Formats: sequence, structure tokens, C-alpha cells
Amino acid sequence: MNNNINVLNPRTGQVDFSFERPSLGFITDECKRLKESQEAWSEAPLAQRISVMLKWAEQINIHRDKIINAESTDTGRWKIASESPDAVIWSIKGWCDKAGEIIDEASVAGNSSIMPHIKLSQKLAAYPLLGVISPWNFPFLLSCIDAIPALIAGSAAIIKPSEVTPRFIESLNETIIKVPELEKILSYVMGDGITGSQIIDNVDIVCFTGSVSTGRKVAEQCAKNFIPVFLELGGKDPVIVTKDADINVATDAVLRGAVFATGQICYSIERIYVHESIHDEFVELIIKKSKDIKLNDKDIHKGHIGPMIFNKQSTIIDSQIEDALHKGAILKTGGKSEKINGGIYYRPTVITEVDHSMNIMNDETFGPIMPIMKFSSDEEAVTLANDTDYGLSGAVIAGTEPDAMKIGSKINAGGISLMDTTLTGAILRDAEKNSFNFSGLGGSRMGPASIMRFFRKKAFMTNTKNPQRMEDIREL
Amino acid sequence: MNNNINVLNPRTGQVDFSFERPSLGFITDECKRLKESQEAWSEAPLAQRISVMLKWAEQINIHRDKIINAESTDTGRWKIASESPDAVIWSIKGWCDKAGEIIDEASVAGNSSIMPHIKLSQKLAAYPLLGVISPWNFPFLLSCIDAIPALIAGSAAIIKPSEVTPRFIESLNETIIKVPELEKILSYVMGDGITGSQIIDNVDIVCFTGSVSTGRKVAEQCAKNFIPVFLELGGKDPVIVTKDADINVATDAVLRGAVFATGQICYSIERIYVHESIHDEFVELIIKKSKDIKLNDKDIHKGHIGPMIFNKQSTIIDSQIEDALHKGAILKTGGKSEKINGGIYYRPTVITEVDHSMNIMNDETFGPIMPIMKFSSDEEAVTLANDTDYGLSGAVIAGTEPDAMKIGSKINAGGISLMDTTLTGAILRDAEKNSFNFSGLGGSRMGPASIMRFFRKKAFMTNTKNPQRMEDIREL
Repeated sequence: MNNNINVLNPRTGQVDFSFERPSLGFITDECKRLKESQEAWSEAPLAQRISVMLKWAEQINIHRDKIINAESTDTGRWKIASESPDAVIWSIKGWCDKAGEIIDEASVAGNSSIMPHIKLSQKLAAYPLLGVISPWNFPFLLSCIDAIPALIAGSAAIIKPSEVTPRFIESLNETIIKVPELEKILSYVMGDGITGSQIIDNVDIVCFTGSVSTGRKVAEQCAKNFIPVFLELGGKDPVIVTKDADINVATDAVLRGAVFATGQICYSIERIYVHESIHDEFVELIIKKSKDIKLNDKDIHKGHIGPMIFNKQSTIIDSQIEDALHKGAILKTGGKSEKINGGIYYRPTVITEVDHSMNIMNDETFGPIMPIMKFSSDEEAVTLANDTDYGLSGAVIAGTEPDAMKIGSKINAGGISLMDTTLTGAILRDAEKNSFNFSGLGGSRMGPASIMRFFRKKAFMTNTKNPQRMEDIREL
Repeated sequence: MNNNINVLNPRTGQVDFSFERPSLGFITDECKRLKESQEAWSEAPLAQRISVMLKWAEQINIHRDKIINAESTDTGRWKIASESPDAVIWSIKGWCDKAGEIIDEASVAGNSSIMPHIKLSQKLAAYPLLGVISPWNFPFLLSCIDAIPALIAGSAAIIKPSEVTPRFIESLNETIIKVPELEKILSYVMGDGITGSQIIDNVDIVCFTGSVSTGRKVAEQCAKNFIPVFLELGGKDPVIVTKDADINVATDAVLRGAVFATGQICYSIERIYVHESIHDEFVELIIKKSKDIKLNDKDIHKGHIGPMIFNKQSTIIDSQIEDALHKGAILKTGGKSEKINGGIYYRPTVITEVDHSMNIMNDETFGPIMPIMKFSSDEEAVTLANDTDYGLSGAVIAGTEPDAMKIGSKINAGGISLMDTTLTGAILRDAEKNSFNFSGLGGSRMGPASIMRFFRKKAFMTNTKNPQRMEDIREL
């Protein structure tokens, strides 16, 4: 087996980085090492874990330039990379602030309501070792979005980011080494699917963010191992724009939701349903605005959207567009992938006259593509929005918020944005969401469940009088 | 394929009941029918669902004799069967009482703590159709222990009890027919593993109670289908009896925990660790008490313990005892299976000088067998208790409750009884527990999670000011 993994630069298409896949022995040893330190980590007071996490946040701040440069090379874009250290620091601080309150709420003390002589109490036992398999679209942030609450809960974590974007790991390891208490219970490893599978066989709980097909394999392996798995998979998120919507606001929100991060985001807008009475005007305006979106091909610090991070994704996008056009869709702007200096780019692409016979309305696209379809009644729009194998999130832009809520409450998805798109980030600490259909499985990574899902609950029951005597029992 | 399934009577060993396995077409149609009615069920106010559930409880009360007679034939025992309608009625009433409070606590309203201009709210969406695959040891109670909270949450349910004990289903269907609103969203079907697998392919969430090997298959099929699964599997539950324990109390509690329901209960005591200083006295007393336990072989209404419900289980038990004796264990009382009038019985069996090289200390037994092992320190006892593939529950009997808690808190299991054994039932409405290792997977069937696990959470986020305008965004 060739253990050398080559990594392409998304701006040049050239291999400019490579690494050795770690051996199985390394993975098992690393998991053993982390588990051995986890008991003390978990038994330490919460305040101590919090203080270690805050030290890590400091180190991330100190090493921010290195991390940003590496992630920027990984992803071919600057602004999002430049914000990732702050996003992670903010996530660490936010969960540290909130953890005490969340964990306190889970406590139970008192007597059984059904057997009053039985005294009850509850203890939380963190799963010893979390395995994280994370994707290439937001390399740093998504590598630790689940691990941060897990570490605060008292788990150890081994994290394997995508082999498409591994450069940031080296700079991150420098931050971990600086916090010896953290190094004992947190490890980032480079690797591909083989490494991921080896990790699943050596951990107690798994968080996976990525594609449906890999997610299914991960879930089956976890089922075989009887370990819980949390899947955050793809989406084909719809937006419904009603006849009363403010067209200027709606086109801003839809364009932003569809092309942010070059559409390489699980909850980007991928299906656009516009009421027939405003359809043409909406299309005209979103085309105009689309043309103002600039590629960052010349200067990574300038422009709005970057290249495809994973160049194979462009084959899928091209074929979806071709299929749609072949079946009668009309390309209004944008279109095929463009190779510029070795990087693969898409301009914001507007396609009309689409329908649900087309792959572009069924399969995840993961690019800045906006297929727009007319509807004539709210009921039809809801039916179309729910005609999908996915159910991650959705959005409704109507004349008023109550109108939007009326429609949005019927969408089968975990996060529904009203009067805007892609607001999921807003619920991070406050509310929970679960995926529908193929978009995922397991407790919410947002809200209190974000921490609580890493605990097993243990119930203690004390008989406060003598146990029932044998002579009282006629039949057992 | 032969679709006729023959059922043995556990008291005679004779086939006295048979049924036709339903066709795949029937199962898919039945699931479709239930799903079609579920939306209205789920959208109805909680009070309406509660009133329907209470009507069902009334009908169970009215039909109690028929149900008791059928379950008694299914299981070859009287007292537990005679209590099952009341146990279910009490479960329905208890969850109906508590549901409003549990569901209210899950509500979220307010603004995002991190983006204050985003208004948040949360809605609960019950999984449309629950599939239940339930075991033969407590046929009626375990068939609806998960379905009752699911129905209250707003799910529909299709329930397939074990093909070993299907007789009670007919009498139960009479209760369901009497409540037309319930009949629309609840169906009991007879069937075996083939039917179970067909159900998994047609539902949205699964609760399985049974063996590890079948549980793994169920979990893998659910993973393939991306649906959540809750597994309640086997146990090899330990009890630790310390040197300060009251030996009279301890022998009562251990004997009861080990032989209740002929040991055919997931959380029965299957490993007994007794401090060396009291070991001989403990053994002597438990043997004496064991000899007072009577079989119900002559009259089902008399005696303490019944026959093996699933006669194949006796092969496993016999081979575990043989293996232990072959490896040096000593049989003190009881022992091999006895065939009486065609039924297979075990007398309470005490085995000493056991160790962890023996199957009887590793594999689930599911019979009234008490293997007793000495320990010399509390640390050793905890190590032995945790040396297992399971982690369902455990027990500690010490001199005082704080001493018992000190040891019990180190046991890796979901429910720990202190100063007694097998108190798990006490937490039903009040606390939660999760299984360790191969004893199960998924949220607690007890405490608030019992209801909450049947909801997907949907988060709604409203932008209360205009969405961010395109011109504000330098890079997307």
C-alpha cells in the first residue's frame, strides 16, 4: 500500500503538499494514549477543563497568522480563512461560558416519583474518546465544532480533517503542544478514509461531517461497533420567495445564501422557488447582482468567491448543469467551470425553467449555482421544497414574518430561516436542530445537546428502607 | 417460503398456537396507512392525544382478563402476567401526566445570544412512524414501553412483538379497535425477524429490545436507512457485596435480583462478587434461601418461578454451567435444566469458585443462575465488575449508602442500585440512563428523554432587520 498522500493546491491545480498516511499502529497507540489521560481530564472540575480550553484559545490567537496562511492555501480563499481562528476562539469562549449552566440543568436529585422510598441521583459520564472526521470546506472550524463541546464535557478527542485540506494541521499542532494538559487529550492526525475507518475502530463515539455516501459507511461501521454516531451530511436547501416578498431584499439574501464560500457549504441555498408573479423580475435582478460577484483568481485578497477546493466536485456540477440544459432548462448567466491558472472556478450561475426531473434539483451541487423554479401557490411551494431526499435547512422570504413562518413551519428541515437565508449559525448556543432524511443523524450539534450528547447518563437508585424480603414475594 | 410460524407452549413444549407471517405488501400498506394518519395525530393538541391514550388505558382495563390469560400462556407464569395490564395502564397514565411538563421544557423563545437581531423559536416535529421490535420476556409491557411515549409525542407506531410470545396480540387488538382514533396510528403485527426487517425499511425511527446479535443487525440496517435506532440489549449485571454488608439483606436482594422472572430479565443479577471475609457465610445463606424458591410446575398459580419461555435458552444455560464446572467451579445447589411435563425449568442455582475465564462470567445467561466470586479489595471488585462487554446496570450492597455510592460510582453501567439490586424501574419518569458497551445504544427510555427522543427539533430564525446587503460583503 502506498502511504504517500499528495495534496493539490486549489489555485494552481498542482501538488504542493504531501504527507504519509499514519500506520494503524500509530492510530491505535494514539487512541490508547488519549484514553489513558481522559479519566483524569473527565474527573477534574469543569473549571479546570475550561481553564485549559482558554489557554488553547490564547495559543490559537498567538499562532493566528500561521493558521490563516495554511488554511488559505488549503482552500484557495482569504477572507473566510482569515476569520477562522477568531471563529474557533469565539466558539471555545462561548461554550466555556455556557457549559456550567447546561451541565447543571442535567442534574437530578430527589426521590422516585413512583417508589418514594427510592432515592435518586444522576451522574454524567463523558464518553472517553471522540473520533472526529471532518470535511474540507471549512477545515479548521468544522474540525473542532464538535470537539470543543466534547472536550469541555470531559471526553478526549482524536480529529482527522479531510486529506484535501490538511495543511492547517501542522500550525494547529503547534498550538496544542503549547498546552501540555490539552496535548494529553487532543490529537489532530492527517489521514484519508483508511485512517478514518481505523479511528472509528478505536473510539467510543464519532462525529462525522461530510457526504451522504461516506456518512452511510461511517454509520454502518459505528453500528457494528455499537458506538453512537453524529452525522452532519449534505443538503439541497430550498428557499421559497412569495409574491409579497421585497424583491431587492430577496435577491440579496438568495444570492448570498447560494454563492457564499463558492456554494461550498452544507446549508447553502441550492433550490430557489419563486412565485410566478414576481419570477421574471426576480430573475432579472439576481442576474444583475450575480454579475457583480468577482472571482478571486487574480489576487487571493480581492474578489468575492474562490476556486473549487476539491477539484473533482466540478465534474458533478458540470454534469448537473448539462443534464438540466439537456432537459430544457435555460442558462441565464454563468455556466461551465473555468480553469484559470490551474484553479477551477465557477461564476455565479443562474438557471431557469428547471423542474424536479433534473439532477440539479435533486442532488447536492456544492457550487455557486442558482436553479430557479416558478410556483403558483404556497402549498405547491411547500410540496416542492419537501420533495427531496435531504432536510438540512430551508428558508422563506415572504411579505411579513408571520406569513414566512406559516410556510416555513411546513418545511421538513432542521433549521428554517425566515425573511433571509442561511441563518443557522445564529442558534449555535441557544437552540437545537435535527436533520431530516439523508441530511444527518443524531443529536444536535447546536444548543445544549452540543455538550450533553457527549455524556452517558448514569442513574443511582438507593433503597432507603430494607429491600423487599423474600417472604413477601409469592412469585418472583 | 413457508409463512406458517408455530409457537410452543412453555409449560408443555407443544405447539398450541400458530400464525401466518404477514406479507411484505401488508407491512408496507400498514406503514403507509399509519403514516397517513400521523400528521393529524401529531398536529392535534397534546390534550387530545392524551385523551385517546386514556381511552386505550380504559379498554386495557376492560379486557384485562383476556390479556392476562394470553400472556400467561405465552410466558408459562401467572403473577407477572396478571400484573402486566396494570403496569401498562400505569405507564400510560404516568406519561400522560408528565408529558406537558417535559414538552414545555423543550421550548425556546427569544433572540440569538450571538446575533441579537435574529429572533429564535423552536418547534418539535415527532418522527412520523416508530417501528418497535420487542422481546418475549415481558411481552405486553416491553411491546409498549417505547410506543407509549412515542404516541404521546405524536408519532404513529407499528409494533412487532416476538414470535415466541405472540398470543397476547389478539386480545390487545381488541382494545385498539375500540378506540378508533388510536387504531389509525397504532398497529400490532405478528411476525418474526423477516417481518422485523421489513418494518425497519418502512419506518422513520426504531426501538429494539432484545439480543446483542440481533441488535447489531437492526442497528446496521437503520444506519443504512439513515434512521435513528434505540437499542436495549443484554446485560451481565454485577452486584458487589462488601465486607460490611448486612448478609441477610444482601442475600435477599441478590437472590431476588437473580431469580426474579426466572432470571429472564435484561437487568437481572448475573455476576455476584462477595468480599472474601463474608463469602462463605453469604453462600451458605443464599443456598438456604434458594431452596425455598418453588417452581410453578404443578400449578401456574402457585410457586415462585416459571419455566423457560424460550426453550432454546436452556441450551445456552446448560453449556455455561458445564463450562464453568469443567474449569473448576463448584455447583452448590440447582444445576441442569429439568424437563417437567414438557416444560423446561431451572431451580435457583448457586455456583462458587468461578472466575472470568468461564463463559458464565462473560456471556448473558438469562436464567436463575448465581455465580459467586470472592474479592479482597473494593478496587478489585470494581475492576471485576467492569471487566465485561456489557454495561446495562449494576448494584452495590455495602455497610452504608455512602460506601455503596463510592464503589457504585465507578461501575461502568447506566443504572446502579445501592443497598439493593434491580431498582431500575424506580427512575422511570424521573431520571435517565444510557447503556455502556454492548448493552445498548441511543437516548434513555426513561426520564424526559423517553418522550423527547421521538421529536426532531426544528429551529426557526428570523432576521428582524434587513438581510445583510451584498455591497457590505467584500468576499463571500
